[in-house]
Amino acid sequence: MASIFSKIVAGEMPSYKCAESEHYYAFLDINPVNAGHTLVIPKHEVNYLFDLDNDEYVGLWQFAKKVAQALKAAVPCKRIGVAVLGLEVPHCHIHLVPLNAESDMDFHNKKQLPAQQMQEIADRVYAEFQKL
Amino acid sequence: MASIFSKIVAGEMPSYKCAESEHYYAFLDINPVNAGHTLVIPKHEVNYLFDLDNDEYVGLWQFAKKVAQALKAAVPCKRIGVAVLGLEVPHCHIHLVPLNAESDMDFHNKKQLPAQQMQEIADRVYAEFQKL
Repeated sequence: MASIFSKIVAGEMPSYKCAESEHYYAFLDINPVNAGHTLVIPKHEVNYLFDLDNDEYVGLWQFAKKVAQALKAAVPCKRIGVAVLGLEVPHCHIHLVPLNAESDMDFHNKKQLPAQQMQEIADRVYAEFQKL
Repeated sequence: MASIFSKIVAGEMPSYKCAESEHYYAFLDINPVNAGHTLVIPKHEVNYLFDLDNDEYVGLWQFAKKVAQALKAAVPCKRIGVAVLGLEVPHCHIHLVPLNAESDMDFHNKKQLPAQQMQEIADRVYAEFQKL
């Protein structure tokens, strides 16, 4: 069965799209730990980050760097934090989270933001990504 | 002033060394959130992960993948989690944490383990790294 993330990539489920390339996709986490919390995934469905073959693994991190640069330009913060946990959805994903304090990366503190605010953030990140 | 991590790389401060290459170094976090919690750093002192130039950034993630494979072999767990926060020590570092549940990656729950246990873990990771 396709993962929820594969359905998002295929356009079968909606997402707040932040960036896309041939092999990778980035969209807002619908339960962000902080405004701008973004997920970066390979379109190819692989469960565990370190099971990606080397080219795909390197490509994913290079794409994530560009998304992090766009996110930092779109959502003012001290820096972009990174996390990969991956025990919930079986499709590997990098969390990128705008941080002003280390405590902003707290997976026990998920929020919901209004749809309009989510769309505005995604549009700003997408616009910044296009400039890179 | 050299960061505490540059002093570790230079051998001016002790560390529980897990792996080393020409440009990268890995050692146990002295306040682990879980047994086997490892820090992966570039020897070259750069504060923010996404300020690394592309070759060094890619090389760091490739080294981290090998360390994660060694760590998973040395410390039984479901998978190795990844985090980069970086607001405390101004020398970028990737946290690699053996996970059996997502809650194992909780930076509010730092522990101290006996020195002998830390050395045994580091030695096992080092031995596994040499096999890769």
